[in-house]
Amino acid sequence: MAPELQAKIYQGKAKEVWSTTDPDQVVLRFTDAATAFNGVKKASIDEKGALNLAMSVKLFDVVSDAGVPTHVVESLNDTDLLCHRVTILPVEVVVRSVVAGSFAKRYGLEEGMLLDQPLVELFHKSDDLDDPLVNDDAAVALGWAKHWELQCMKELALQTHAALSAFWGAHGITLVDAKYEFGRTAAGALVLADELTPDGCRLWEQGTQRKLDKDVFRRDLADLGDTYRELHERVFGS
Amino acid sequence: MAPELQAKIYQGKAKEVWSTTDPDQVVLRFTDAATAFNGVKKASIDEKGALNLAMSVKLFDVVSDAGVPTHVVESLNDTDLLCHRVTILPVEVVVRSVVAGSFAKRYGLEEGMLLDQPLVELFHKSDDLDDPLVNDDAAVALGWAKHWELQCMKELALQTHAALSAFWGAHGITLVDAKYEFGRTAAGALVLADELTPDGCRLWEQGTQRKLDKDVFRRDLADLGDTYRELHERVFGS
Repeated sequence: MAPELQAKIYQGKAKEVWSTTDPDQVVLRFTDAATAFNGVKKASIDEKGALNLAMSVKLFDVVSDAGVPTHVVESLNDTDLLCHRVTILPVEVVVRSVVAGSFAKRYGLEEGMLLDQPLVELFHKSDDLDDPLVNDDAAVALGWAKHWELQCMKELALQTHAALSAFWGAHGITLVDAKYEFGRTAAGALVLADELTPDGCRLWEQGTQRKLDKDVFRRDLADLGDTYRELHERVFGS
Repeated sequence: MAPELQAKIYQGKAKEVWSTTDPDQVVLRFTDAATAFNGVKKASIDEKGALNLAMSVKLFDVVSDAGVPTHVVESLNDTDLLCHRVTILPVEVVVRSVVAGSFAKRYGLEEGMLLDQPLVELFHKSDDLDDPLVNDDAAVALGWAKHWELQCMKELALQTHAALSAFWGAHGITLVDAKYEFGRTAAGALVLADELTPDGCRLWEQGTQRKLDKDVFRRDLADLGDTYRELHERVFGS
């Protein structure tokens, strides 16, 4: 039997974290909020929470089947995901298969250039600092992670990305880039955490390169709800 | 006999590069220009070229004695440095002993925090892009250097930094951080290139932490010419 919700312990931009009657488990509640540019642009998108939870559960299954440990226990209803309680490391791993977004801008590159192999970048999780790029040595020196943890996170992120690239490829979609977050369990293990949704990755329709992710909202390209419903139908059928 | 100057082949912000009658050698001419914030702030500082050339020659000697290969052949006069012709790699190596400057700002840290060991960061040399931070994988993926070259540059930069830290320490000055550039010779060897001057590093007086480098100009703390003359006197005697 699933533990009961107790108190909201964290309010994120598009998710809440609730404590439960089991001290080792928390609930992630997926809300309908959409934000971009570090919270500067905001909206409420009908059904977004439920669509993102369903997508996350499916993608965590895919990743888990590929041998990557994750924080997920089970979904409780349309918006709540029961998870092992973890301490999120303050370093995000971004894996890029195709040049896009901040990488293109930072280095003056055209979006769409295919990289020979997936490229890993680390960012320090900090809304105040706008999630700055960081290298391994600095992340270790500043106490954000141990060297072995970064190696482990990068390896798990590449495994995750390969599994998700294959999954999306089978649905006619290119996984352009994605952000992965990791947490330490009470026992000290590193597991893939947070969510796996089109809020945290770029998905381009193969052939047309039409955007099917949060860039639709960032750049006002289409209705985000319609886009996420289309993705949902591609994955689960209509 | 030194080769003769032919044509100016590159105009930098504070230096010029001239070709010579020897195709394998160039002359770096140190000018009196001072610039900051990627050329937005500019001034002409009397004697700066000559002071920086003298300092560079001395510091390249120190580094060379420590076993680091450099591009320097010999100084020709007060402003001209004869060097082996190299192709500068588009990746700069910054070594940090103490938190300061862009590193402090990027990660929300106080200036002055001593790092346990020197920390290396790579930046892509690009005025248009404001020299963005880059990690090893991206620098290799974008063709700016081979993986072994980055390893070699980082190792040589740490050796250089250790030798210069000891040198400045003996003069009562802390080498806070420094930028190092490397070039490939015609034969394919990697050598320390560019200049070694207070334009490209931070030097703080031990005890007082008084700044004795280009931050004096960036932040309008004192007269840059007086500061560089003081450094010169500390190193060469008055």
